[in-house]
Formats: sequence, C-alpha cells, structure tokens
Amino acid sequence: MKDEGLVKEIPAKSGNFSEWYTAVVLKAELADYAPVRGCMVIRPYGYALWENMQARLDARFKATGHVNAYFPTLIPESFLKKEAEHVKGFSPQVAWVTRGGDADLTEPLALRPTSEAIINYMYARWVRSYRDLPVLINQWCNIFRWEKTTRLFLRTLEFLWQEGHTLHRTQEEAQEETLRILNIYVDFVENDLGVPVIAGQKPESEKFPGALATYSIEALMPDGQALQAGTSHNLGQNFTRAFDIRYLDEDNTEKYPWGTSWGVSSRLIGAVIMTHGDDKGLFLPPRVAPVQVVIVPILYGKEDEAVLSQCRKVREMLSLFRVKLDDRLQYTAGWKFNEYEMRGVPLRIEVGPRDVKNGQVVLVPRDGSGKLAVSLEQLVDETGKLLDQIQRNMLERARQWVMSVTTSAETIEEFKRNLAEKPGFVKVHWCGAQECENRLIDETKTTPRNMPLNEQDSVGKCIICGKETKTLIYYARTY
Amino acid sequence: MKDEGLVKEIPAKSGNFSEWYTAVVLKAELADYAPVRGCMVIRPYGYALWENMQARLDARFKATGHVNAYFPTLIPESFLKKEAEHVKGFSPQVAWVTRGGDADLTEPLALRPTSEAIINYMYARWVRSYRDLPVLINQWCNIFRWEKTTRLFLRTLEFLWQEGHTLHRTQEEAQEETLRILNIYVDFVENDLGVPVIAGQKPESEKFPGALATYSIEALMPDGQALQAGTSHNLGQNFTRAFDIRYLDEDNTEKYPWGTSWGVSSRLIGAVIMTHGDDKGLFLPPRVAPVQVVIVPILYGKEDEAVLSQCRKVREMLSLFRVKLDDRLQYTAGWKFNEYEMRGVPLRIEVGPRDVKNGQVVLVPRDGSGKLAVSLEQLVDETGKLLDQIQRNMLERARQWVMSVTTSAETIEEFKRNLAEKPGFVKVHWCGAQECENRLIDETKTTPRNMPLNEQDSVGKCIICGKETKTLIYYARTY
Repeated sequence: MKDEGLVKEIPAKSGNFSEWYTAVVLKAELADYAPVRGCMVIRPYGYALWENMQARLDARFKATGHVNAYFPTLIPESFLKKEAEHVKGFSPQVAWVTRGGDADLTEPLALRPTSEAIINYMYARWVRSYRDLPVLINQWCNIFRWEKTTRLFLRTLEFLWQEGHTLHRTQEEAQEETLRILNIYVDFVENDLGVPVIAGQKPESEKFPGALATYSIEALMPDGQALQAGTSHNLGQNFTRAFDIRYLDEDNTEKYPWGTSWGVSSRLIGAVIMTHGDDKGLFLPPRVAPVQVVIVPILYGKEDEAVLSQCRKVREMLSLFRVKLDDRLQYTAGWKFNEYEMRGVPLRIEVGPRDVKNGQVVLVPRDGSGKLAVSLEQLVDETGKLLDQIQRNMLERARQWVMSVTTSAETIEEFKRNLAEKPGFVKVHWCGAQECENRLIDETKTTPRNMPLNEQDSVGKCIICGKETKTLIYYARTY
Repeated sequence: MKDEGLVKEIPAKSGNFSEWYTAVVLKAELADYAPVRGCMVIRPYGYALWENMQARLDARFKATGHVNAYFPTLIPESFLKKEAEHVKGFSPQVAWVTRGGDADLTEPLALRPTSEAIINYMYARWVRSYRDLPVLINQWCNIFRWEKTTRLFLRTLEFLWQEGHTLHRTQEEAQEETLRILNIYVDFVENDLGVPVIAGQKPESEKFPGALATYSIEALMPDGQALQAGTSHNLGQNFTRAFDIRYLDEDNTEKYPWGTSWGVSSRLIGAVIMTHGDDKGLFLPPRVAPVQVVIVPILYGKEDEAVLSQCRKVREMLSLFRVKLDDRLQYTAGWKFNEYEMRGVPLRIEVGPRDVKNGQVVLVPRDGSGKLAVSLEQLVDETGKLLDQIQRNMLERARQWVMSVTTSAETIEEFKRNLAEKPGFVKVHWCGAQECENRLIDETKTTPRNMPLNEQDSVGKCIICGKETKTLIYYARTY
C-alpha cells in the first residue's frame, strides 16, 4: 500500500506564493516545463480543463453569431509594419522564421504575436459590399511572444488563445460588439471559472497597439497582484484603413468598416489555480473541472465486492456528470482523498460497507464544508445541487476577498498605506492627464488597471493634481 | 434580384480536374490563398467542416482511452537529430526560427514538422514505472513543412492535424494500438466522410522516418491518383531508446517502452471535396456537413407570410439537425438552389404556397435522386432517414467507382495498359525486394501505396522477378 501523498511536496499557499503556484501546477500535472526556455507543455489534465473552458466560451461566441476560422501562423514582416502603433507595440516580442528547408527566406516571417495584420489583409480580399458585413470571425490558435520573464500559464513564449476579429458598418456597431464580448468574458470568467473581475476601459497608456479603445477584465490574485484576464478592443478604422478594406455601402459610396478584436488565453488557467487553490493543492470550479465527481470505495477486505458494486452503480447513475471511479487496489482510500483534493476535484463520493447497508453514499465537497450522507434515490439531484452550490460559493468567496482588499485613496500617502496594509486594488480619481498617471506609477510602483464601467458617477479630486473629475480608475501591482 | 450563380465559374469536373478542384475550394469559401507562398486560410465554412470532423474523430479517440495535450511548436535542432532516420527524413522540410525579439538564438528552433522528438523527450521525464503505462496522448495542432509544390488542403506549408503518441509495455500492445488506430481511421474516413480506403502496410521505402512499420489508409481520387489519407506507425523502441525513456517493470528491471504514433490532417478535406464534388460544386457528407439541411422558401409575392411561417416551423422541428433557413429576399429561390448545391448542402427543403396548403414540404437530396413530398408529421423521421441514406450512398458510389478502376497486373505491360485505360489502383504481387520495387516505380511512374491487410492470402508471382510470393501490393500515381 502506497500512502505517501504528493501533497506534502506543496508548500503553504500563505508562505511563498510563487513556489506554491509552481508546485501546484507541476504536482497536479497541469503543465510542465519544455526544453526551450519559456515554453511549456500543457499536460492532459490541464488540457482537459482548457477543452472545457474552450467549449463553454465557444458556445457563447456561436450563440452571438460568431464563426471560427484558421489563419496562417506566418506573417510577412512588411504586414506587421502597416499599422504604425501595432508594429511598435509588438516588434520587440516577435520570433522570426528566416530559413525554410535549406534556403534563407527573402523576407523574414513573424510567428503571429496576434493576428490583426494577417486577418485584415484577408478581409480586404473578402469584403466588397455592405451585405458582407458584419464579419464575425474567431480563431482558436497558438500565439508566440518572445518574453523575457516567463511563468507557467501566466506568461510563456507560446500560449493558446482565442482571438476574435470583426468588421462592422458603423462605429456604433463596433462599439456594441466590443462591449458585448467584454460582457461575455465577464460572464464566463465569473460564472464558469468563479473568478471575479473588474470590467473597464484601459487608459491610453495601456491600450492595445493600434486600438481606438481597449477594455479589459482585471482579476486580483491572492498575493494582491492584478492579472489582466481578457481584453476587447475597439479598433476604429485603424486597421481597415491600414489594410485598405473598403465596402460599397447601400448609398453607393465606398467606406471603411469599423473593426474590433478581442481575446482570452490559457493564462486564465493560471487565474483559476491561484484564485481557488489552497494548501491541499488545486480546487477546480465544477463547470470546467475535468473530473467533477470522484468516487472512492472504502475497502476493508470484507464486503469489498458489495462496495465496489455500489460504486459502479453510482458511476452509472452520475453518467451525466464528469465522473471517475478510482477502484485501484494499490492505493489506500486516504491516499486517494489527498490525491483528488490536490487535483482539485470539487466533489468526492465515499462508499463504505455501512453505506451499502444503508443504501446511501457520503458526499464530501472539496471546499471543506463537511460531509453529507445521501440516499441513492436523492443522489443525482443532490450531486447537481451541490456542484451548483460549490460553483457559486467559489465566486462568492473570491469576491468577498477581492472586496476586502480593494480600497480607495485620495492621496499618494493613503495609496501607499493601503497597499502596504492590504495589497490589492486601489481606486483613485484621476483627471486623465498622462503626467498625473506617470507620477502615480512612479511613486507607487503600481500600474493603472482600468476605469470600471459600473462606477463612473461619483465626483472626486484627481489624486495627483486635485482637479475635479468623475473618472475613477483601479491601480494595482501586476503580473 | 440577383440571379447569376457562382456555379458558372466552376469548370466541369471531367475537364481540367485540378482547375475544378481549386475553383470549388475558392467558390465554396472553404479556403483561400494566404500571402505567404504555400500557406492557406481555412475560411469559416471549411473550418466548420473541420470542427465536425474533429469532434467525431476526437470522440473515437476518447472512447478508446486517449487524452489530449498540447506540446510546444518549437523544437531544438539537437532534438530532431536524436533519431537518425527521423532527422534525415524531415530536415529538408523544416522551417527554422533563428531570431527572437531582437536577438539571434544560440540554437535554431524548428517549427514542428511532427512532434515525436519533443513528445518523447517529455515522456522520458514522466514515465518511471509500469504503472505509468500505457501513455495514450493525442494532440490537435498546426504543423509546418516547407514543401516546394503546394495545393490548397492537400499540401501546404502549414496545416492542421492530430498526432497521437503512445507508449506501451510490450511490443504486442504497441502493434495492437497501431492497428486499433488504423481501424478507427478506416471507420471515420469511410463512414463519416464517405471516402473508401485501402488499409495496409507501407513497404520499407515508404515508411515513416524512424518507424518499425508504417500502416496507411489510401484513397483514390477521381483523376486516378492515390491520396494517402492517414498513417499509423509502430515505432518499436526506436524513439524510446533515442530519448532514453525507461520504466521499472513489475519484475524490477528497467525496460524501454514500445511506441506508436499516428495522424490524419486537414488534407482529408481535400479528399472529401474531390471524391464527392461534381460539376455543380461541392457535395458534403451529412455527418460532417456544416449545414445538413437548407430550407428555401418559394415566394411569389402572395401568401409569402404563410410560406415563411411554415419555413420557420420546419427549422424549429429540425433543430436536432444542422439546419439553415435562407429567407433573404434579395436572392431568388433559383439562385439559392444553385448556391447551396455549390456549397454541398446534402439536403434542401423547398416550401411553397401549395406545400403550405397541403401541410407538406418537398425534400431534394443533393445527389440528384429526385424530389420527395413529405407531410409535416413525417418530416423529422424522413429527414433523418434521408440523410442516413445519402451518407451511405456517397460511400457506396465512391466504392463502386474505386473498384471499377482497380485492376491487377502480372506484367509491366499489363500494368501500363491498365493504367492507361483506367487510371487507378493496380494490384501486383511483389517478392519484397527493393530492386523489384525500384524497377516497377521507374517503368510505370507510379509509387507503391500499401500492402492491404485484407488481401494477403493469394499466392502469385512477383511482377518483376517472377518469384512466388503471397505479398500483394497496391500501386498508383500519387499526389
């Protein structure tokens, strides 16, 4: 019997947070380091999580009329240069293919750091008439950014994401789309991943290179650092002009469409790990957990067959859930408890001889809220209810915590004091001037996150210059 | 009213087959040329087809215990060199990243031409004990091969595929896996795509670089050329030795596991287009068609609202199918008939004023088998039956044709005559000697496809040297 848990190898979350994070990723077999610096392997357990996330997000895109496509990874250098801001923003991070087969290429090819350039080039060939609009295309793909400092899931040279690229007849439609997607991201990240976010507009300095306006959702990690969890850009006509995309409108004049682009990435897996994990390891939200329910038989050597038989029956009854029966004999029940807690399975079902006798099973939620004996008749209902409740509680608990470390500041001193006492979000009023922003960044070593869409009605004074303003903005330290 | 069909721009399939193919791909908006030579864009309609194919194949992999993962695209040059045959086979086709950000890399990184090297490197870190076996991992990803001659879907510098990479305790298990997957490929390609294939073993000269044995499925295209539609490799211990993957077996000795790898790609879309298309354009198998049923209202200006209302009712009734109602007023019914035939929608439903009066609709299969009036009560059943029948007929018709151009030859002269009269597969007996194969290739400008698994019992004489042999092998011209 093998009873030593991997769990012991995970340091306390409240200790060295960064070590805890890496240990959880590796021990739960979500990912591993690849031989190339800054690259990662997403292991089957991590990839199953990503597949569930993909499916739920993809369904939301399709329900709002979007379709998927696939554009090439390789982008000619000259394309990246067409939008001036765009190339400035991305070129320091680009990886270049310079040789193919045995020959040097005449023009280096970029591995896509994002696909605006190649996609808008194709749109120029496809869009002719107002009847071709809107174009609502998304793609799921790999992305390459030559980052200096990397971290599993959060920042790697290659990662997986989705990127939507749309074209519209009017500026209003493009703005609607930008916010429609932002709301989809909020809904998905909060309700499926249980990660509360602030949805808002980025200040100029944090805009996507080439965008008119960038909106983001910002999550807060347990070490008090903000994580940008998704962005939605109103591109205006910047790319349609740069790539000369014109359509003949109903009034028989040629016009440039209005564009948007938006994306979330496998970085969200990092947000899930950090938000919900604890000293025992991972804790996965039921809606996306690869295994929602694990059944563990309690075997004593006697009546084992009856126990195993009831376990198999339970597995069958719960076939609508993602359920796993671990009936391996070489591991103790105790070892399995630790193992599946470490792997973040949200609900455990224990079946022992007494349970067989009583026609019941014992449900044990991963959140430590206690054990619940349930009759077989009630099992399916109770499992569904309990998983829903676990899902809701995960968001609620995380939201409470974020609120508890979100403060307001009217002076730089107050800002610094808040951050020292409760590392988290600090809300400030801001006049909108770049100099004021620069000074606040310099003094606090934080960065502006976004201007929340739901909180722009109170008048206050700019934390730096004292000018009256209605603009509220979140600041935080950041990944 | 716009009545000119795009169909007119598609040349006859029986004319210049290659021009027909390209026209269908472009006009049906399955794909487009990308700005980089040899690269393609998979457009939404083509990608929806690929998504349906993926879903059905992925379900088969998962039902046989496989899980998905994601490995990095970038592979160090030194890794590719670890398996001697492997590097020789692939290095002429590799694209190289030599610059990241602003710096030259110390070691060039290959864009994966296939992932044996990187995956087996990771396996060496993960596999310790016999309890870790089998490893049954698949990945869906993009692949890069610097090809000289390219063609939409069939051969491009970048394409999409799945690649399975497994490890097993014994040689027998690895061989079982190799054939299990081959059978999954046969089942999928024949029953879901309607493309008949020959499943067999490749001769030495056509083996995957680094494999012990390669099996393939070979389809035959309407121009009489064979298309390799999928491969499954028994890798023996070649890669586990090269990457030093060892496990401690139950008998307490260290052993090398046995490996397999296998893949099919977006090239299969090309096989579907060529096999089923006709002068009207595309014809997609119901099981993977993005739109299985298109509803076209026949509008006369009178009773239009009743017709449209019945159309919407039909759409609702058929919600379990992938159904589309085209109620656009700016196109005529005739234009829509052409459009959806060109796009290969397997079943059209027409609804006119008389149909409303009679409580019926008219079903029109894409295969030209005629029209069928069906009452609303029978609609769901009949639609399901008809789609099944269309699916089966597509395979059957294609199989009949392949059989009609598959011949046997006992001499080179007969071989050449057969090929001239009926370009297709030519079956020959072969002694197994490389010289005999070389001579047959030289004389006929064909290549050996595979040695069919189901037809190895008849004794015959080697077509070149006359030696008695039971080995039968298929030859054909090839893409």
